[in-house]
Amino acid sequence: MRQILSVLVENKAGVLSRIAGLFARRGFNIHSLTVGTTEDATISRMTIVVDGDARTVEQVEKQLNKLVDVLKVKKLPTQESTRRELALVKVQVQAKDRGQVVDLAKILNAKIVDISHTTLTVELCDKPEKVELLIELLSPYQILELARTGMAALQKGSGAIGYQEKNLSRG
Amino acid sequence: MRQILSVLVENKAGVLSRIAGLFARRGFNIHSLTVGTTEDATISRMTIVVDGDARTVEQVEKQLNKLVDVLKVKKLPTQESTRRELALVKVQVQAKDRGQVVDLAKILNAKIVDISHTTLTVELCDKPEKVELLIELLSPYQILELARTGMAALQKGSGAIGYQEKNLSRG
Repeated sequence: MRQILSVLVENKAGVLSRIAGLFARRGFNIHSLTVGTTEDATISRMTIVVDGDARTVEQVEKQLNKLVDVLKVKKLPTQESTRRELALVKVQVQAKDRGQVVDLAKILNAKIVDISHTTLTVELCDKPEKVELLIELLSPYQILELARTGMAALQKGSGAIGYQEKNLSRG
Repeated sequence: MRQILSVLVENKAGVLSRIAGLFARRGFNIHSLTVGTTEDATISRMTIVVDGDARTVEQVEKQLNKLVDVLKVKKLPTQESTRRELALVKVQVQAKDRGQVVDLAKILNAKIVDISHTTLTVELCDKPEKVELLIELLSPYQILELARTGMAALQKGSGAIGYQEKNLSRG
């Protein structure tokens, strides 16, 4: 089962290495990990998708909370989260078959972002399932290159994951 | 200066940790890193954006090539690459001001993907500069949560980064 963890960390050199190292040492399986700065440049948000049962994810949460760079860890329930992934897919397609790929992109609300005599590059930003579907539907054409970002997620509704609490308790 | 490296790696446990560890030990500054499986499930593509001059990036390339999990490293020239980033931004906005955020989203081709009495969540998938612009334009509203994926990139045109070469040379 896939679980989503939203993790606020200090934006410092070595943080990614320490977090990836924790997962590797403990044998936790990272399905995807994305990281970017937040509105506060000193803080980054990681969205980590972990394969594992509830007990494993509880362990991961505990271990993450022990790291000094980690400000806040929150599990995001799939149904109550806005989940998005970005993919760029370059397919080999001759002029006569281009229309097929263009139609497919239209149906999935994907964009054609580059073209050459023999290739099209398709961009899709959607739920990870939709990204999987696009790749599956493009697989009969030869996929030359594929770049995916992994999932970014925020909880739905007005709630926000604050990081003030841990900061304050340290001060 | 920012440089983009497209790196094909074996999709194995611990690879992210080893690569992030290399950057941390050598003091190379990762601006962003995204990773996802390719059309071949045994291989992942990482897009790593590094801050540094040409010499630094050359060093990074050399060090990456020494890692046994790394199949191929290629520097992508900014102008000749399709570069995209995904961001989800949740802003606090009262009903009377919602129209302002909706207009802003329309102008930037961003989507409103969630709404509550007091918040809007905006999704944008575009060049990293456009993502920066969205965040800058939304900053007068209170940004409650922000999740970014970092950059995914593919070279423009029909070229593709193969990983057969290193595989063969090993065999």
